[in-house]
Amino acid sequence: MPRGRSATRIGRKRSFPLSEVRRFLEPGPIVLVSSAWKGQRNIMTMGWHMIMEFEPSLIGCYIWDHNHSFEMVRRSRACVINVPTVEMAATVVGIGNSSGRDIDKFARFELTALPGTEVEAPRIAECFANFECRLVDASLIDKYSLFVFEVVAAHVATTPKYPRTLHYRGDGVFMLSGSNTSRYRRYFKPQNL
Amino acid sequence: MPRGRSATRIGRKRSFPLSEVRRFLEPGPIVLVSSAWKGQRNIMTMGWHMIMEFEPSLIGCYIWDHNHSFEMVRRSRACVINVPTVEMAATVVGIGNSSGRDIDKFARFELTALPGTEVEAPRIAECFANFECRLVDASLIDKYSLFVFEVVAAHVATTPKYPRTLHYRGDGVFMLSGSNTSRYRRYFKPQNL
Repeated sequence: MPRGRSATRIGRKRSFPLSEVRRFLEPGPIVLVSSAWKGQRNIMTMGWHMIMEFEPSLIGCYIWDHNHSFEMVRRSRACVINVPTVEMAATVVGIGNSSGRDIDKFARFELTALPGTEVEAPRIAECFANFECRLVDASLIDKYSLFVFEVVAAHVATTPKYPRTLHYRGDGVFMLSGSNTSRYRRYFKPQNL
Repeated sequence: MPRGRSATRIGRKRSFPLSEVRRFLEPGPIVLVSSAWKGQRNIMTMGWHMIMEFEPSLIGCYIWDHNHSFEMVRRSRACVINVPTVEMAATVVGIGNSSGRDIDKFARFELTALPGTEVEAPRIAECFANFECRLVDASLIDKYSLFVFEVVAAHVATTPKYPRTLHYRGDGVFMLSGSNTSRYRRYFKPQNL
């Protein structure tokens, strides 16, 4: 199992507009969900999520009920969605292939837990972005394992402008994010930007 | 507005396992949603979607009620989710910045409508993959504009193995998908692959 050789090339973080969280989540990166409940803390990987609204900033997330984080997030009604970079790939896979029932993943993967500013859940310092979330709708958990979160605080590294992220395809294969382009921007209507 | 100079380098398509649709949707590409209702057909762009289950193969999609496709999909209870490649970028933006109220987008963007094999909605021949979907849960549309679809037929080009896709960041900026790697596969537990 990999030790956490985490990205260190990210710049200082700044508070980020909540309604623009899509900039980093809409392209579909794998994320790390951190949570805390009754003195315990945990981290899980998550690939199934979607933006559901700009304002309030809503994110729908699938958390499987077999995950140790499931009850922690459901009971604490909060989590932090952390965006890891490509340099953290081995750590991401290690986190996704171990259980918080057995280990403290922050310790095991040498990750730094920073206190949330708005929620009890810890932020992962080594990640490019940290989105603190409150569970605002628990009514779809039983049927779909779907948690609807509102982002209540966002912390994003100032550099690079866009990180290289991991996008999971299943079967152990990741797509790595490529270049960013605004060359098609001229085809947008101004009101659609 | 751009004319459709569509990707032609995709190989012939084959039927694809429904439970593995994630391979192309989980990394978060922008997709084209095609639909038909009462002799009309339409196409819209969609960036807010997530895998919700493998078997049955469920996909959650946000369709804004201002979109002309909203009622067409809701009433016909079907659509095709088409995955365009980078070569279709100008077409994708053109489709997202025009309305089916005014034009026939298949004609305007010179796209080929193939009949669905399982649903009435047309497939877009020029796209890398076509996932025919039936609306299986309409109960979240009013509250969240969330359509829960089941993929009932999947057609995926045989080459390339993974296409270069467009991932929207908002503000006219696209991330282009980069390379694919299985170098982290050795860190997975076999049962998690």
